[in-house]
Amino acid sequence: MPSIGESSTGKLPSSKDFTKYLNKKSIIRRPDPNGNISKYGSNSSDMISLGLGHPSPDLFPFSKFGFNLAEYDNETDKIKESTFGEEISIGTKTAENSSVEPMGIVLQYGDGVGLRSLVKFFKEHVDQVHKPKYEDWTTVLTVGSTEGFDKICELFLEIGDSVIIDEFTYINAIITLRGHCANFVTVEKDDEGMIPEALDRVCTNWTGERPLRLIYLIPNGQNPTGTTMGIKRRQDIYQICQKHDLIIAEDDPYCFLQFGGLPVVEPSEETEEYFSKLPGVKGTLPSLMSMDVDGRVLRLDTVSKILAPSLRTGWVSGQKKLVDIIQSHIETSSSRANGVSSGMISRLFNDHWGHDGFEKHIIFLQKQYLSRRNVLLKAVEKYLGGMATYTLPDCGMFLWLELNLPPSVASEPGIMDKIVDSMVENNVLLIPGSQSSPAIDAESVKDAPYLRATFARAEKKDMPIAIERLAQVLEKYGCKR
Amino acid sequence: MPSIGESSTGKLPSSKDFTKYLNKKSIIRRPDPNGNISKYGSNSSDMISLGLGHPSPDLFPFSKFGFNLAEYDNETDKIKESTFGEEISIGTKTAENSSVEPMGIVLQYGDGVGLRSLVKFFKEHVDQVHKPKYEDWTTVLTVGSTEGFDKICELFLEIGDSVIIDEFTYINAIITLRGHCANFVTVEKDDEGMIPEALDRVCTNWTGERPLRLIYLIPNGQNPTGTTMGIKRRQDIYQICQKHDLIIAEDDPYCFLQFGGLPVVEPSEETEEYFSKLPGVKGTLPSLMSMDVDGRVLRLDTVSKILAPSLRTGWVSGQKKLVDIIQSHIETSSSRANGVSSGMISRLFNDHWGHDGFEKHIIFLQKQYLSRRNVLLKAVEKYLGGMATYTLPDCGMFLWLELNLPPSVASEPGIMDKIVDSMVENNVLLIPGSQSSPAIDAESVKDAPYLRATFARAEKKDMPIAIERLAQVLEKYGCKR
Repeated sequence: MPSIGESSTGKLPSSKDFTKYLNKKSIIRRPDPNGNISKYGSNSSDMISLGLGHPSPDLFPFSKFGFNLAEYDNETDKIKESTFGEEISIGTKTAENSSVEPMGIVLQYGDGVGLRSLVKFFKEHVDQVHKPKYEDWTTVLTVGSTEGFDKICELFLEIGDSVIIDEFTYINAIITLRGHCANFVTVEKDDEGMIPEALDRVCTNWTGERPLRLIYLIPNGQNPTGTTMGIKRRQDIYQICQKHDLIIAEDDPYCFLQFGGLPVVEPSEETEEYFSKLPGVKGTLPSLMSMDVDGRVLRLDTVSKILAPSLRTGWVSGQKKLVDIIQSHIETSSSRANGVSSGMISRLFNDHWGHDGFEKHIIFLQKQYLSRRNVLLKAVEKYLGGMATYTLPDCGMFLWLELNLPPSVASEPGIMDKIVDSMVENNVLLIPGSQSSPAIDAESVKDAPYLRATFARAEKKDMPIAIERLAQVLEKYGCKR
Repeated sequence: MPSIGESSTGKLPSSKDFTKYLNKKSIIRRPDPNGNISKYGSNSSDMISLGLGHPSPDLFPFSKFGFNLAEYDNETDKIKESTFGEEISIGTKTAENSSVEPMGIVLQYGDGVGLRSLVKFFKEHVDQVHKPKYEDWTTVLTVGSTEGFDKICELFLEIGDSVIIDEFTYINAIITLRGHCANFVTVEKDDEGMIPEALDRVCTNWTGERPLRLIYLIPNGQNPTGTTMGIKRRQDIYQICQKHDLIIAEDDPYCFLQFGGLPVVEPSEETEEYFSKLPGVKGTLPSLMSMDVDGRVLRLDTVSKILAPSLRTGWVSGQKKLVDIIQSHIETSSSRANGVSSGMISRLFNDHWGHDGFEKHIIFLQKQYLSRRNVLLKAVEKYLGGMATYTLPDCGMFLWLELNLPPSVASEPGIMDKIVDSMVENNVLLIPGSQSSPAIDAESVKDAPYLRATFARAEKKDMPIAIERLAQVLEKYGCKR
């Protein structure tokens, strides 16, 4: 494998310079090597520093911290409660055969890059999986992709700027953008997500005072529509972004939950052979970052869907000039990704799993999610029939239903509110599509006939009951199986 | 004890309304009960929700996580490496006699308030220690006071606004403000920190286009000057802030490291009786929040100096209308304080220490820091003599030295850079004062004859050596003992 910054055929080119698009704050937030107090760190072993105001690790009230791995019970689909897997911990000294820092470093202050051993693992991962096409890329830890996207907004947006998003997209990204006083430019989708021609049209016809500069995309298992872009779609979208010189925020929390095009089957048909076609990490679809020759993609990864959300650990990758400013901003906001989480994850990934073990864990998750998807989709086939139209989700955790309401019902003002109320009465809940639109309060959107179902959370045994209850509700509103 | 929101003499008044001072972004970031997807959470036990996109806790790869308490070795001033204290963990079920949430909640997504059991503890703490004087206060978790202060800036500052700070103050607060494109208005200090009359003068004479609205203060053990405001000083400063309608960011990371006015003594004189006068939590000086009748103080607390920095856990307290917006902003940036840290701290504080155990831990830390201060100050007395002037630090971790350089040396351009170089050559390091000034690049500030020493980090045995080395350097530049 060539080292980072080199392709197999030699040295890679540099990224394009997008710093001309930085907003006023980000110009100031550029790293200033002379303004950084950490240059006063000790570098000689004879040095006695009375410099940095770091508390002594000898006063941390912990002798070690860590976790036990879970043992998953395939019978009950739950973590075994009575048995604990291997204990993985961090103490005052580096553990034997460990490449992870000891507690005195892990729990101390540090710069915005984050815990070095974990950053190293993620850089290797980015290098192996996304194979960046330019030389000057880097990766820093975030406290999750929510922070990552907020920081990307902070790089470019001035008050009143317009940002390109899907018609329906991740609600928290919408709220984040709203908090930056952004306006929204929405682009239509089809079964593969955003339509390149529609994006091109929107950009070509743009007459706003300030140019369109930022586009937010979820290429895999889009939230809420569940669509996944094919390779050609990704290439086309990237080219349109090049044409209009857009910066791409590639939010990819579901990238590891891909199903490789596997069909919906009954549980009895979920054989080892069936699962053997799962893509793991190595077989996932190429990311937008992997196609990025310009350094216009800022890629957001997270452990939220593959370990646990409240570990609050993600990583942002992209061209160094931009990621460095994100790092500077991290240093004056979240300060640095949490040490306890970073340490735990680093021990798990570096010392116990390695990239091969990570691959195995991802395949385990893909099995679980695929199996849940199959149960939900079989129930949808059985109980809903023609009541709703949908694209089969091949990734992630969402099924997007377009309700086939009779025209007279569909045109009733407040119809979706009524359907939600009826669902709650009937003890089932899906999220109305309007919740994923920036125009949530517009009448046309409020009554848009979409529901989002997730197969991440409910137990498999409950899913058919939930869908049967949904069918009862929809029947009341005139939907026909 | 009266319940929260009531004083011992009855119901408290409401805070004043400062929402008129919010900036454009914060007006949008106000919580919108209808825009929050979490209203679609399940509330009936019969409900089957396919709503929120939360991963199943059964797929978290952990069966438990936690830590072992440290046993501190008073002989070596270090954590005992071979023995581990009690293990405190969180598993899939709530531990016996625990009031802390199980792993499935602790590691899951949640709102920006943070883990409820920990928020509850901090609210009790705020109620007991700061006894708010108005009814509508609240507390939310932050990922540390760095985030807390950034969020306060985000509440009020428009580009180009001016903020009031000490002449020398916490470098990271300066960098944070700079990143918000703020201008600085600095106010002189004396031995007790900011001078009220000077603050009044600055505000009265202010002719800027936009009014002064935000003031940043570190009342205890100020970084870098080590000053602590007396009670009268706090009252006077608060009154001037009322007069000019300023919002106060009270950054108080060192509040628990107060020494109660204890004199510098030799180690042999550090008797139990001597230490018995330490203030603990209960005897600390009243905070600005405790005097705040208007709700103009936003108070920042953190565990960084009392547990460990990279737990990235703090709490911000103040009037609900403002803290709610901070919470909304957290939900679109850091998302929520880290679950692993919150869970660990909640188990420690709620289940093991309680408020009494917390008090004991604080007294332990006060002993350690006081003892370190004493060693450093004895060395300063012995080796520096008249080479430098200082205020005895009665809190925190910093000693601020004003060097008594001969006038001909003091006026040499670049003199402080030379002194820093000489220190590094002589294997000792203190931070030059210019690093704590917003005018770091101005010639007058670059050569300001101040050095900050911290007694937090170096070992006690090394401190006299460090100060002796410093004396050798200063002697070279003509300082006289």
